[in-house]
Amino acid sequence: MKRGFGSDNHSGICPEVLEAIARVNQEHALAYGDDEYCAATEKRFKQYFGEQANVYFAFNGTGCNTLCIDAMTRSHHAVVCAETAHINVDECGAPSRIVGCRLLTVPTPDGKLTPELVKTQLHGFGFEHHSQPKVISITQPTELGTLYTIDEIKVLVALAHEYGMYVHVDGARLGNAAVALNCTFREMTTDLGVDAVSFGGTKNGLMMGEAVVLLNHELADGFKYRRKQAMQLCSKMRFIAAQFDAYFENDLWRRNAEHSNRMAQLLYNKVKDIQGVKVMYPVQANGVFAQLPRKVWKELQNHYFFYDWDEDADVVRWMCAFDTTEQDILDFVTVLKQLMAEN
Amino acid sequence: MKRGFGSDNHSGICPEVLEAIARVNQEHALAYGDDEYCAATEKRFKQYFGEQANVYFAFNGTGCNTLCIDAMTRSHHAVVCAETAHINVDECGAPSRIVGCRLLTVPTPDGKLTPELVKTQLHGFGFEHHSQPKVISITQPTELGTLYTIDEIKVLVALAHEYGMYVHVDGARLGNAAVALNCTFREMTTDLGVDAVSFGGTKNGLMMGEAVVLLNHELADGFKYRRKQAMQLCSKMRFIAAQFDAYFENDLWRRNAEHSNRMAQLLYNKVKDIQGVKVMYPVQANGVFAQLPRKVWKELQNHYFFYDWDEDADVVRWMCAFDTTEQDILDFVTVLKQLMAEN
Amino acid sequence: MKRGFGSDNHSGICPEVLEAIARVNQEHALAYGDDEYCAATEKRFKQYFGEQANVYFAFNGTGCNTLCIDAMTRSHHAVVCAETAHINVDECGAPSRIVGCRLLTVPTPDGKLTPELVKTQLHGFGFEHHSQPKVISITQPTELGTLYTIDEIKVLVALAHEYGMYVHVDGARLGNAAVALNCTFREMTTDLGVDAVSFGGTKNGLMMGEAVVLLNHELADGFKYRRKQAMQLCSKMRFIAAQFDAYFENDLWRRNAEHSNRMAQLLYNKVKDIQGVKVMYPVQANGVFAQLPRKVWKELQNHYFFYDWDEDADVVRWMCAFDTTEQDILDFVTVLKQLMAEN
Amino acid sequence: MKRGFGSDNHSGICPEVLEAIARVNQEHALAYGDDEYCAATEKRFKQYFGEQANVYFAFNGTGCNTLCIDAMTRSHHAVVCAETAHINVDECGAPSRIVGCRLLTVPTPDGKLTPELVKTQLHGFGFEHHSQPKVISITQPTELGTLYTIDEIKVLVALAHEYGMYVHVDGARLGNAAVALNCTFREMTTDLGVDAVSFGGTKNGLMMGEAVVLLNHELADGFKYRRKQAMQLCSKMRFIAAQFDAYFENDLWRRNAEHSNRMAQLLYNKVKDIQGVKVMYPVQANGVFAQLPRKVWKELQNHYFFYDWDEDADVVRWMCAFDTTEQDILDFVTVLKQLMAEN
Repeated sequence: MKRGFGSDNHSGICPEVLEAIARVNQEHALAYGDDEYCAATEKRFKQYFGEQANVYFAFNGTGCNTLCIDAMTRSHHAVVCAETAHINVDECGAPSRIVGCRLLTVPTPDGKLTPELVKTQLHGFGFEHHSQPKVISITQPTELGTLYTIDEIKVLVALAHEYGMYVHVDGARLGNAAVALNCTFREMTTDLGVDAVSFGGTKNGLMMGEAVVLLNHELADGFKYRRKQAMQLCSKMRFIAAQFDAYFENDLWRRNAEHSNRMAQLLYNKVKDIQGVKVMYPVQANGVFAQLPRKVWKELQNHYFFYDWDEDADVVRWMCAFDTTEQDILDFVTVLKQLMAEN
Repeated sequence: MKRGFGSDNHSGICPEVLEAIARVNQEHALAYGDDEYCAATEKRFKQYFGEQANVYFAFNGTGCNTLCIDAMTRSHHAVVCAETAHINVDECGAPSRIVGCRLLTVPTPDGKLTPELVKTQLHGFGFEHHSQPKVISITQPTELGTLYTIDEIKVLVALAHEYGMYVHVDGARLGNAAVALNCTFREMTTDLGVDAVSFGGTKNGLMMGEAVVLLNHELADGFKYRRKQAMQLCSKMRFIAAQFDAYFENDLWRRNAEHSNRMAQLLYNKVKDIQGVKVMYPVQANGVFAQLPRKVWKELQNHYFFYDWDEDADVVRWMCAFDTTEQDILDFVTVLKQLMAEN
Repeated sequence: MKRGFGSDNHSGICPEVLEAIARVNQEHALAYGDDEYCAATEKRFKQYFGEQANVYFAFNGTGCNTLCIDAMTRSHHAVVCAETAHINVDECGAPSRIVGCRLLTVPTPDGKLTPELVKTQLHGFGFEHHSQPKVISITQPTELGTLYTIDEIKVLVALAHEYGMYVHVDGARLGNAAVALNCTFREMTTDLGVDAVSFGGTKNGLMMGEAVVLLNHELADGFKYRRKQAMQLCSKMRFIAAQFDAYFENDLWRRNAEHSNRMAQLLYNKVKDIQGVKVMYPVQANGVFAQLPRKVWKELQNHYFFYDWDEDADVVRWMCAFDTTEQDILDFVTVLKQLMAEN
Repeated sequence: MKRGFGSDNHSGICPEVLEAIARVNQEHALAYGDDEYCAATEKRFKQYFGEQANVYFAFNGTGCNTLCIDAMTRSHHAVVCAETAHINVDECGAPSRIVGCRLLTVPTPDGKLTPELVKTQLHGFGFEHHSQPKVISITQPTELGTLYTIDEIKVLVALAHEYGMYVHVDGARLGNAAVALNCTFREMTTDLGVDAVSFGGTKNGLMMGEAVVLLNHELADGFKYRRKQAMQLCSKMRFIAAQFDAYFENDLWRRNAEHSNRMAQLLYNKVKDIQGVKVMYPVQANGVFAQLPRKVWKELQNHYFFYDWDEDADVVRWMCAFDTTEQDILDFVTVLKQLMAEN
């Protein structure tokens, strides 16, 4: 299938990652993460997130998010998140089923929680009829391609900790955020007091592999059993470790994320002045959300795969990936312009 | 790590499988299984299991088993299985947590259920205080390296269906069983009326990839949502499909399974007459279970990795994999004999 | 404690109900509902709801609501309800934990769902990433003391069934609704195609006792096991049956509900013209919601127990019960007026 | 229905208990346990169990047991119990569904766990593939009418605490045990280090009412929310409190339990020498288990209701209740003897 703008997980495996898989494919290794490759890669994670990080590989983002929530809550707790959060919209209710807790969702203008928005959900503490708020979960960058600044995260952490709550960062695209904010992973998380991170790799060049990074030590208690019970323990784990090893080696993650962010900027710059196309949110990571005439985007989908985001509002989503090329963007914009002119 | 006899998942990726991953690593593909590679591989599964098979890829064996049970039960049901079954012993209670149902476990001499053993659990039907038996789950080959014959499966299916129950086959090593019985997959499952199969690939040469094969059409209702909710839906699914494609191509699965079975036979033949070593079960697949002096097996573990199976009884498990060589066996037996002589 | 306006479950047991408990308290009876008293009372329910009704006694309203949802959904489904619904606000997340499904909540002006409001949640059908809408749950009368008309329920049922969904009525105060609408229970439920009803008794004079009434036959499959497993099966069930028997005898339920509704009307009439007191919703059942100066309602709480409903908005809730007297109302209003004058 | 020997929950409400319900049935009381009656009764519990006891009323025994397990475990844990335990046999899998954990069941000769029997399940600690043993649950008296001595409980507690595990006592008939052992409740529980007790009342004269008694303070954390979420929070709680108040007043519980124990002894003495009738277990509480010719017990069931316990072995269960009379026993034995003579 021609490269399109459907999702960053429509891309394949970054060559360096595939080579790393091949490289560790020799002889035997202990299963379930007890091998030397996993140990080495966990060390790498500690370099990026700090010594206190407890790292657990998992299969996918839904697994990471659900396991993080599982570590931070029991079933009578609630997680405050944006209405657009992946855990709310895109995981078919995994937290309800696996953890049993509730999500308290907040409408946001741009996918970002603020202390004011969170506070609308912070009531009923001590009242046994109400699910008890226990986690603030943010997505960085958000599902709408926007970013929390360091300071914005800091105040959310302060609010959470003031209420005895935890902070979770859904970082399925955390690399894109680090690049955009020009900061390290730990500056965005550990250093701010974030408690748990879902660290994504698949959307930025891995074949399949994500990691739960627990920064708050107390959350690790019993975690390994719960990962296993929740069916997220990989047997030939070295092949996930190897992918992350390649991901960190020579800052591959950074190159990939810089590239996809830049492609999104290029796309943004090429479409922002097209009459009839309205870009909906600041383009701060690797996605562009645009409103355009229905007839146009429907026809455009005959040429390129991408999703409508809000069909009623004629808003579509264009995602750039590590393998999107400048030419892809130029070609796409050419077709778009042509369709705009025809319609 | 030197090749040992710890587990067939200590082996790596079969070269043909890794090549297949590389082969589909181009351009974009729809995520979550909606791509052409997945469609093609699902067709292959139907060739092996019959047109009625509904195939769902999953990440691991625990995921497959739990999803199969989930499809066949609700939480007030019970699954009859051998005490040694993987779902009972090795999945940290995944079925309880994810499905909420109970396992009714039966001690067996050789890991195999019989109608008589199953019937000890078939009571309390209609009595609301008792979990209602709904599934007979067998492992083929069993955790003890033994095999159900076609006829033995047939009578268990008949018993199950007589009681309105389903039959599940945990086929984490189904290839080894097919080779040992010299039959096709469908002759062991579909043709006998089996309702659901956990079809393993990882232990026989895949990197990571298993499949739920639902042979009873009614079990597929709502299944895709439940796989997603249970965190077993892979985004870059083409890379699981490609592995299975290679697995079926030119009967790679068969070559690998024949090899590991043959290695187990070789090992069995080399150790069976050693004074002081007692092989515990018929060697019918790729595992050998042996009893030998504690001092010997403890020292042997300094040379080769393998698990004690029942430490109190001095029984150990030696698993052969697709990459075990004849020389591995010969070297191992040499060391074993030497240790037996010294002790 | 002096009679106040805290909740209709602050009242005690209606004398006729307590007498009925005493009446069946002789000799032995089979436990768990297999006795003659339960059989007789179930017949009574069928007289009120129609022959197709399957009746299951339960301990409390949370139990009834959760069991109804459990009968109508699996964990990948979602229930559409008003943001103010008891299942959303007041059950500490029971549906998430017990069933695993999600609630899709809709803000409403008056506690009532409309087809337009429900439709905002009816999307994502067939998309495995989204919880699948399966139930419309309405509360009759609502948590805000308002009522659905027969026609309003009818169109919601039509909408639900058009989408292959079920309709659940949380009828914790269904008697008050029947009285207010001057209709029978079945005219409000069975005759309209409602699928399941949580039928309350405790708030209208019972000691403790509620009933799940399944009007759609297919929902009864396996239900008795699931009630037991969900810990809602009473052993000495005759004492719940006897309460409901008294409840139906000579239309006790009607007298009680008429009374509490009338008391609410009286209260409404006495306060509606007090300057500075604003009644927030139509008073259609047995509750009055009023906005008044904070200082006043805080002081009023020193005299009478009642809950603030929305502290930020200075809205309080005054509930009338079967045992509220006219004098209670008059006294209460006297104090209220005095406090209004003083402040 | 004529008084029989079916179950102690076939009996009705003890008169003093019903009077107590009537006595608190005046005016209003706060709901959900925040009233003065509940406060007073909780104090009474502390007199019986010690100041550290946290008491939570619940609806039924399944609720109590499941909530206790919920307080002591998370889903990756396991509970060691006798194969005959109520939580294993008679609760339709409630612990699996509500808590998600596993039961590790042990066959016993007389319903009683011993350290040796428990130790067969104490392995796999730290191994993430195995559910982690966390609770030893005993039933006192057992389902077979036998008793743990104080010393036997003491050694089980020591074993549990040595392994970092908790001890739960299912005391659905704890009064019968206290009477039989001639000890107080706390001598059997608190003083021995027991962590949690399911304290029954219903089988010994209450209408419906049980209590979770948490003796280990750390277990109370979050418990009230989890009781609510698990649907075991009663609204008109004063009516449960009043029952327990009467239960403790003038040692009503003791009189009732002494009586039913004595009736069982009488029954035992009358049947033990009947040729062809074999009493299976020591009669230490209020139940007698006997083996007798099938034809006889089947005919006997035409005269009196009782359950077969193990139909295949021709073992039946005869339970005595607080309202069983000496004449009931004598009449029953007369019929039994007559049938034995005829057959």
